[in-house]
Amino acid sequence: MSGTTPAQAIQDFYPDDFAHCYGCGRLNPQGLRLKSIWKGEEAVAHFTPRPQHTAVPGFVYGGLLASLIDCHAMATASAAAERAAGRKIGAGPAPRFVTAALRVDFLAPTLLGLDLEVHGRPKERGARKTVVEAWIVAEGRVTVRGEVVAVPLPSTMARPAS
Amino acid sequence: MSGTTPAQAIQDFYPDDFAHCYGCGRLNPQGLRLKSIWKGEEAVAHFTPRPQHTAVPGFVYGGLLASLIDCHAMATASAAAERAAGRKIGAGPAPRFVTAALRVDFLAPTLLGLDLEVHGRPKERGARKTVVEAWIVAEGRVTVRGEVVAVPLPSTMARPAS
Repeated sequence: MSGTTPAQAIQDFYPDDFAHCYGCGRLNPQGLRLKSIWKGEEAVAHFTPRPQHTAVPGFVYGGLLASLIDCHAMATASAAAERAAGRKIGAGPAPRFVTAALRVDFLAPTLLGLDLEVHGRPKERGARKTVVEAWIVAEGRVTVRGEVVAVPLPSTMARPAS
Repeated sequence: MSGTTPAQAIQDFYPDDFAHCYGCGRLNPQGLRLKSIWKGEEAVAHFTPRPQHTAVPGFVYGGLLASLIDCHAMATASAAAERAAGRKIGAGPAPRFVTAALRVDFLAPTLLGLDLEVHGRPKERGARKTVVEAWIVAEGRVTVRGEVVAVPLPSTMARPAS
């Protein structure tokens, strides 16, 4: 809509020291740069796999689909933490989560060449972990479903970027 | 050892039409080209993540680790099928499996810059599916464990490469 500012992605609010993720870091020039936007009660991202992201010819590589689920789930956990604290997404730095467990079910082959819609919703939220449900839609059909356990970035991983 | 031929990877025997996988296809010049070798009762691969394969600085991206588990498990399933049929790996084209479900537990952060050893063993094998256990070792420590359900390439995905 004219006159509105495009929504900023949750990943745009990750602190600079933790914004290098291959899947979604704005400071990783060679990465995928997934952008997850909070809409209503869920996070949504769009991604068009590149021709090299092939499984067998014509279909998207499962490792890429798992990566989209993974990064999108971390952003969903981050946004859910902000909302639980009564803050709007982008009111301050977004808390950084990392993946403890990733489960992905490939329900149907995902055709290469389409814009994919990635959805994520928090299913359980606690101080120690957040469980996120995520799924990928291609041409109106859910082809991938995931469940991801996100944990706050542990202090052992919190080195400043060099 | 001098005088011996280096073992060929299971992926080297995938038919040309199905050798384009981003994670392990010999015909994907932009891919990771994982090579899984059968040794004794398991498949083993080595991979050194590139600097861009970052999660947060200093640590390997989980989506890459999931991708290594995924491709290595498909190769393990392929080799297990060959062995169950009484054939040596490389005696003919290797059967191509695809992933139905992927479960990855990140037990500890994996440091970037190390050579990673990926292991895979068939856990259950049937005509419809093979369940593979896989794990990643960094500096002698298991940092990632996975369980992957592999199914034979369905006819709906068997398009010839263009």
